[in-house]
Amino acid sequence: MDIDAEIRKLDWNREPKGLYEPIGYALAAGGKRIRPKLALLGALAVGRNEKDVLPAALALEVFHNFTLLHDDVMDKAEVRRGRPTVHVKWNENTAILSGDQMMIEAYKLLSRVPEDKLPKVLRMFNKMATEICEGQQLDVDFEQRNDVTIAEYMEMIRLKTSVLLATALQIGAYIANGTDEEQQALYDYGINLGLAFQIQDDYLDCFGDPETFGKAIGGDIREGKKTWLWLTAHATGSETAALLDHCAGNVEEVLRMYEETGVKKAAEEEIARLTKKAMACLEVLKENKATKALKTLAEKLAARNK
Amino acid sequence: MDIDAEIRKLDWNREPKGLYEPIGYALAAGGKRIRPKLALLGALAVGRNEKDVLPAALALEVFHNFTLLHDDVMDKAEVRRGRPTVHVKWNENTAILSGDQMMIEAYKLLSRVPEDKLPKVLRMFNKMATEICEGQQLDVDFEQRNDVTIAEYMEMIRLKTSVLLATALQIGAYIANGTDEEQQALYDYGINLGLAFQIQDDYLDCFGDPETFGKAIGGDIREGKKTWLWLTAHATGSETAALLDHCAGNVEEVLRMYEETGVKKAAEEEIARLTKKAMACLEVLKENKATKALKTLAEKLAARNK
Repeated sequence: MDIDAEIRKLDWNREPKGLYEPIGYALAAGGKRIRPKLALLGALAVGRNEKDVLPAALALEVFHNFTLLHDDVMDKAEVRRGRPTVHVKWNENTAILSGDQMMIEAYKLLSRVPEDKLPKVLRMFNKMATEICEGQQLDVDFEQRNDVTIAEYMEMIRLKTSVLLATALQIGAYIANGTDEEQQALYDYGINLGLAFQIQDDYLDCFGDPETFGKAIGGDIREGKKTWLWLTAHATGSETAALLDHCAGNVEEVLRMYEETGVKKAAEEEIARLTKKAMACLEVLKENKATKALKTLAEKLAARNK
Repeated sequence: MDIDAEIRKLDWNREPKGLYEPIGYALAAGGKRIRPKLALLGALAVGRNEKDVLPAALALEVFHNFTLLHDDVMDKAEVRRGRPTVHVKWNENTAILSGDQMMIEAYKLLSRVPEDKLPKVLRMFNKMATEICEGQQLDVDFEQRNDVTIAEYMEMIRLKTSVLLATALQIGAYIANGTDEEQQALYDYGINLGLAFQIQDDYLDCFGDPETFGKAIGGDIREGKKTWLWLTAHATGSETAALLDHCAGNVEEVLRMYEETGVKKAAEEEIARLTKKAMACLEVLKENKATKALKTLAEKLAARNK
């Protein structure tokens, strides 16, 4: 199924234009469409038809883009996927209201799920939506704290990033009549995939190839963000922590420190470990095209350089 | 059923506090709880038990308060029900994110509706939520336009105010196994009640008793808002319109003009007409305690002075 074509079929040429145009704009920006694809793969992985999964798959993509829209307002981000963000192109109030409507549109798509499956899908979706907001709040809270542990950081990225991937797979498998065990396996794969993906994100901000990364290396360091690497360096020992604080903001020095103290290597190992863990989750499933695609996806994400 | 007690039972003492405290704060502010009460009355009006309606009734109240929270951010309103608004007490980002979570909480409450009723209730709820956002957008659009007709204004307040009241009654009646005809009658009652209520709001801002109105008279006139009275005065003829524009912002003069040109009387008649129309909708229902309460409610709203 061509998920991009299905997203393009959604009609935003509706009145009042001031409400719907920004939604169409936000959704047209593209992106990897990974969440709806995972929902379809979740269905295919349990060996069943993907057709019934389409409304939920679209709901997940619309919801994801709603979170980006409101996150960009809160972060005062001016660019998203190479284009002005909605609150820049229109204004902040438009971004708030069209974002709200976008969340409602996600629930409208969800209401098209086969009726016998709807109650449980709605509950899975609500749980996921709640966890994403909780993750966003923890991210905000962590900025004000100096005692964030790596365990807390992992929980934050689990909520903020992983549960949406995991729930996409789970909902796909559930609608396609997958067993509880199959659903759980796919959910767990999604969690670990998301964690690996996020740490990889932190890693690439430090050690990505500037040619392919798409933005300047070291943005997180300049902003003083508490990434996995920063937290791991601080957890290594008070000497390392003091050293890191001393060269805070200096990209070159921090990168050298990450290399010398083994933080870089630890990140690589952690990404590899989580990727392996994700793939191991798939072992309870009968191998087919979809499970192979999920394994390839995990390998690709771990090897990506942008 | 004590709806206030049921709202107090909702537990917001959850982590992360930064996300949930503002929700508890916003919901504790009170208000008339008219929407959940209408949902319960909708059930009772069709002669059935109200117990199954509670989750949907709470969902409607939480959703309503979510719209107030985000509206206050967009309007930069500093006070709501005598207390600082969420974006003033915390900050704008908190109001956005906790507002988002509040909408999700509404859908979580909705997911507790009896499973056989859930698909249709979800669709009714989504339609209502969409229409509220559309009404809010029209309200914003109207500020930039000088050619708004009374018909357009009525459509805007139907979307922004009436559909939530109407849908509350409809959902209550549907869950309590009311017939399609009963549901429609209650829905139509709610639409007309909401229209009367909103025009009454515009009217009281001009001619309310300053002692009981709770805020200064003439706020809409000072802000140059296009209320039902303003639009009606402009529709009366070009002479009246020119006169009104001449004394724009001058509360005393505008009020005198509204009296002299018959706009005040026209507003009173329109409120009475819509109230009567609302009550007539109830005639298809068998009379009982609930239908009597709905009639009393319409009379009280039309006679209120605050």
